[in-house]
Amino acid sequence: ELPRPYPNEIPHNEKLLSLKYESLDYDNSENQLFLEEERRINHAAFRTVEIKRWVICAMIGILTGLVACFIDIVVENLAGLKYRVVKDNIDKFTEKGGLSFSLLLWATLNASVVMVGSVIVAFVEPVAAGSGIPQIKCYLNGVKIPHVVRLKTLVIKVCGVILSVVGGLAVGKEGPMIHSGAVIAAGISQGRSTSLKRDFKIFEYFRRDTEKRDFVSAGAAAGVSAAFGAPVGGVLFSLEEGASFWNQFLTWRIFFASMISTFTLNSVLSVYHGNPWDLSSPGLINFGRFDNEKMGYTIQEIPIFIFMGVVGGILGALFNALNYWLTMFRIRYIHRPCLQVIEAMLVAAVTAAVGFVMIYCSRDCQPIQGSSVAYPLQAVGLALFPCFLPTPGSYNPMTLGMFTLMYFFLACWTYGLTVSAGVFIPSLLIGAAWGRLFGISLSYLAKGSIWADPGKYALMGAAAQLGGIVRMTLSLTVIMMEATGNVTYGFPIMLVLMTAKIVGDYFVEGLYDMHIQLQSVPFLHWEAPVTSHSLTAREVMSTPVTCLRRIERVGTVVDILSDTSSNHNGFPVVESNPNTTQVAGLRGLILRSQLIVLGLVPPQVFVERANLNLVQRRLKLKDFRDAYPRFPPIQSIHVSQDERECMIDLSEFMNPTPYTVPQEASLPRVFKLFRALGLRHLVVVNNHNEVVGMVTRKDLARYRLGKEGLEELSLAQT
Amino acid sequence: ELPRPYPNEIPHNEKLLSLKYESLDYDNSENQLFLEEERRINHAAFRTVEIKRWVICAMIGILTGLVACFIDIVVENLAGLKYRVVKDNIDKFTEKGGLSFSLLLWATLNASVVMVGSVIVAFVEPVAAGSGIPQIKCYLNGVKIPHVVRLKTLVIKVCGVILSVVGGLAVGKEGPMIHSGAVIAAGISQGRSTSLKRDFKIFEYFRRDTEKRDFVSAGAAAGVSAAFGAPVGGVLFSLEEGASFWNQFLTWRIFFASMISTFTLNSVLSVYHGNPWDLSSPGLINFGRFDNEKMGYTIQEIPIFIFMGVVGGILGALFNALNYWLTMFRIRYIHRPCLQVIEAMLVAAVTAAVGFVMIYCSRDCQPIQGSSVAYPLQAVGLALFPCFLPTPGSYNPMTLGMFTLMYFFLACWTYGLTVSAGVFIPSLLIGAAWGRLFGISLSYLAKGSIWADPGKYALMGAAAQLGGIVRMTLSLTVIMMEATGNVTYGFPIMLVLMTAKIVGDYFVEGLYDMHIQLQSVPFLHWEAPVTSHSLTAREVMSTPVTCLRRIERVGTVVDILSDTSSNHNGFPVVESNPNTTQVAGLRGLILRSQLIVLGLVPPQVFVERANLNLVQRRLKLKDFRDAYPRFPPIQSIHVSQDERECMIDLSEFMNPTPYTVPQEASLPRVFKLFRALGLRHLVVVNNHNEVVGMVTRKDLARYRLGKEGLEELSLAQT
Repeated sequence: ELPRPYPNEIPHNEKLLSLKYESLDYDNSENQLFLEEERRINHAAFRTVEIKRWVICAMIGILTGLVACFIDIVVENLAGLKYRVVKDNIDKFTEKGGLSFSLLLWATLNASVVMVGSVIVAFVEPVAAGSGIPQIKCYLNGVKIPHVVRLKTLVIKVCGVILSVVGGLAVGKEGPMIHSGAVIAAGISQGRSTSLKRDFKIFEYFRRDTEKRDFVSAGAAAGVSAAFGAPVGGVLFSLEEGASFWNQFLTWRIFFASMISTFTLNSVLSVYHGNPWDLSSPGLINFGRFDNEKMGYTIQEIPIFIFMGVVGGILGALFNALNYWLTMFRIRYIHRPCLQVIEAMLVAAVTAAVGFVMIYCSRDCQPIQGSSVAYPLQAVGLALFPCFLPTPGSYNPMTLGMFTLMYFFLACWTYGLTVSAGVFIPSLLIGAAWGRLFGISLSYLAKGSIWADPGKYALMGAAAQLGGIVRMTLSLTVIMMEATGNVTYGFPIMLVLMTAKIVGDYFVEGLYDMHIQLQSVPFLHWEAPVTSHSLTAREVMSTPVTCLRRIERVGTVVDILSDTSSNHNGFPVVESNPNTTQVAGLRGLILRSQLIVLGLVPPQVFVERANLNLVQRRLKLKDFRDAYPRFPPIQSIHVSQDERECMIDLSEFMNPTPYTVPQEASLPRVFKLFRALGLRHLVVVNNHNEVVGMVTRKDLARYRLGKEGLEELSLAQT
Repeated sequence: ELPRPYPNEIPHNEKLLSLKYESLDYDNSENQLFLEEERRINHAAFRTVEIKRWVICAMIGILTGLVACFIDIVVENLAGLKYRVVKDNIDKFTEKGGLSFSLLLWATLNASVVMVGSVIVAFVEPVAAGSGIPQIKCYLNGVKIPHVVRLKTLVIKVCGVILSVVGGLAVGKEGPMIHSGAVIAAGISQGRSTSLKRDFKIFEYFRRDTEKRDFVSAGAAAGVSAAFGAPVGGVLFSLEEGASFWNQFLTWRIFFASMISTFTLNSVLSVYHGNPWDLSSPGLINFGRFDNEKMGYTIQEIPIFIFMGVVGGILGALFNALNYWLTMFRIRYIHRPCLQVIEAMLVAAVTAAVGFVMIYCSRDCQPIQGSSVAYPLQAVGLALFPCFLPTPGSYNPMTLGMFTLMYFFLACWTYGLTVSAGVFIPSLLIGAAWGRLFGISLSYLAKGSIWADPGKYALMGAAAQLGGIVRMTLSLTVIMMEATGNVTYGFPIMLVLMTAKIVGDYFVEGLYDMHIQLQSVPFLHWEAPVTSHSLTAREVMSTPVTCLRRIERVGTVVDILSDTSSNHNGFPVVESNPNTTQVAGLRGLILRSQLIVLGLVPPQVFVERANLNLVQRRLKLKDFRDAYPRFPPIQSIHVSQDERECMIDLSEFMNPTPYTVPQEASLPRVFKLFRALGLRHLVVVNNHNEVVGMVTRKDLARYRLGKEGLEELSLAQT
């Protein structure tokens, strides 16, 4: 069982920063061996690497598209199967008047399906829970959430989302596609699977954090693209959520992966649905298409849209606040896997019951169609979307109101369950429902004049609600534009999203950021807190720093690495002058992982008889690549007493030119350097280039802008 | 008259790097006064600054939209006027059989209009020539092209583009909108006009390169947005061409400005055209709308699209190569303004003649419509666009072929003339023409089957041709998607653009990059040349560096600043120890502009009687802001012999924590630091933090990947 933070008191995780998360290192490649390889690289070799990058992106796109197809087709078939089972029984029991038995059967069926989905997540791979978007945001930000891009996670994620959707929960299958795309990208780009113990000996060049991160961006974009049929939106999502240093070539590759992904999805689904070669369908989601000609908007409507944005912001904040309390409750009481499974089953049963009651109370859904029984609430909701087309009055306001209310609370309850599922579709549905309700009211008021068309208010409501919950603006605008196949509404959608974000931010953070904070992740935002200019590197850095001498005794290295109380990951290498006191001239930086590889490779390079001689070059760059990314702990390396007395020349392997910063540099400047270059360690030096401290991610993430100005988060070991 | 490079020999500008361009400094703000102000900033003050940023972006959007409206409306009216004049005469003379006189009248009229347009550009503001896109690219990259964002440039640009279009040249009015937007942004964000000598005392916080650059990005995006009705495309254009450090908040503001710009344009034009409140029209350009339902594409067509991409790439490369030779010829022979005006008139007359002949030879354009006489070739071309709709056979293949050929050479001849005009529309027209021709041929072959619709091939041809010439991919894909209001064609357009870029790059660079290189601009690309890893900072840096001591004699400072042979802009400040030899410990960095402001402000801070005492704080941050960006030369500051002997403490004003790099750092690493942070000066230090050299933009821009590996550009003083 995992250790629980604060088992007996109200958790204050939002004021804490966890140290359990390792950082990714987007600048670790600069060890001597790598530099040597880079020096040897010529134009032709570079071209080969570049072509490989494109090939990998194409593969990411294809596989992500195929996974999306797989989810779509399996959901459709399983839901169809469930429908037939339920239908037969309803027919049978309705004759005998046993509606309550039908309800029971239905709820049980849904709860069992969800149980399976919940069990695999809770017991096999807990990181596959939820949409995965917060986790991917963290990964792209540079925080290594354990297991987040493993093959096992992908398998659990895909099965989990299928079961959640088939189980009739108030969830969408779109969010998890982003996580799935990211895992696929991380897997393909490494040319091996550590879980399956297969190494294809390809793409070895990309076995480091920087390259892997770039491919994961592409994978996330491909996921968005497949989910919403929005390749440009996917690129913007990746950039908005992840990138810091914008690189044109990288962006093109991301775009390429996105395009291939939609293309693959559309090709396969068009064949599956029997109209091959028709590629004009969108992604997994289907909003129904807008008609450009009929649907315009006028300038007078802009205030109405802004008002809807305000409503969306408030409802979104309410959603997030409720979910926050719920999450707190879950952290405190529902931390055992079996309890989590039971909660998921309960939610499934309640959702089924609500859906059942809704269908039988409302006349709108008669005759009951296949899909409405399979996932009843979704069906009511999804039916709203094609009605963006002007068909006023085709919805009963009462039903809509009930639906909005019910679905709002169900979706809120569902998010954070230990099942694999997304929040995009529920948010859109809630918004579309109240938006349409709003539009219907307006058209009553306006006596059916042409502009008061409920369809477009449904769209705006959907945007407002989703914006109020997740607080994305640019990428979401584009996703909505692409998913509806309509660019005319770009401006009002942007206005609505901006308003929703501003209003929502006034109350509470966005849902993803909230969950990231609840996990105490050392997440770095785009800029340092604005009031932090008076802080300098001297104040934020960790000091004293454990340094290694350029020529160091093996025993010292082993002792430092074995010291569980410090557990540092990067060590400045300083001049070997034995007379130095605390401060010493910086010569380089060496990472824990590099030191471990030094000890791993037989014959152990730690073992060096001839004192001060150079180590025989037995170590290859390949050794570092083979060990990446799961470096073993130091305990697995046995060093004899004899070997401990040997000396090792670290300058052979260290990064000779680490980034440094003077101790008077202000926090925002340090932050900018850190963020723009994707650093993991930044050495703080004095005027004589002597090491005085070290800045890592947690030192920067500790400072946050709170309600009363700058606040400093405490550190938690869990 | 400007000095000409290489008057008597074939210029080899493409192997040169000019030193006449100053760099912008995106990190110059870190002087002590600024740091103090930043330390004082609290949350409320920050919020005010943030709100001002949004207000400025809204104003940029509105003004850019209005300028676009102005251009559109004036062009329409002037063209109408010209049409009536010509029409009357043609009617009069055709009766008498004097067609040749009509031709003469027409050509003369066009040539006179173009003459005016050319005269104002050539004699008043030469930087307003062309589309301005290369200049804006340079500005966003960090190179200060003189006068590029001045008010005068905007006025000349707007008048120039109106006259060029009315004069019937093979140009578009879209490209210049980008430049116009940028100038508007630069002007508004500073809250004053130096040209008009008006200071509104607002937005003083933004008077530095970093902030100005951000607003210029927004302005360029707003320009794209107004020109093509493509707000997202505008954002991507700005990012693709300019940004390096992606900042989420900045991107949102850019997006906001873009959206406001399209919105303003559409609102005003809808009122002007008499159907107010209908906001669904696109930007200046009008492709005609696609119908989603009817126009699909199938997977078999993909190879055809790729083939079109190849053709576009080859034709684009041909266009660029021809234009390259032409530009060389112009640099060599047509460097006097009066010759430039004559050339522009000649082109106008020839264009008129060709258009005249074309109209009278082809039956397609009967009856002659208003616009076809006003700008005949454009009209033939623009008429192609609405025909994206499936109306096969409505064009005579012969006419199309003639048009393609003629227009190709005319557009090529026109680009680079001393007139203000863009190349987007001509490229699109050429492409649409041969694309349609290709489509017609296909439909003959396919015997009119449904998929062989010439309309979509026209679109693909347009994309291929434009992509082959300008080599943009991501932003251009989105611009095309938004301008046609169609997202279905995203994937094939992307494929076509990618193919065109790859094929075109094989032969010759993109048009904009070519012109940037011909101007010997020290442009920094996205990444250092791949084969440059073996170079270190030691090899690329300039050395020895002119350093100032922390407490320095005023005379020394004045002498260093007056030294015309060096003309450095940044000086490392070193420890004042008089015993130091060549190397000395780095303490800070001070800029030429900062030193000049020190001397400007009465009472002159150079004058400090009490030796080694601190300067009385008379200098305010405001002094630096008021002097920005046109710092006077040192010669304008008079320093007496007495004053020369005084000492000045530079640590009061310097940047105390400049970015440094160790001398062993590889070129790509230096490059990444420089590019990611937008530096102007990077101090190279040794292991003891002593200054050994300085890296500036020109040191990095000198290394380029040529056909035979890494090549080093020579430096030219012109």
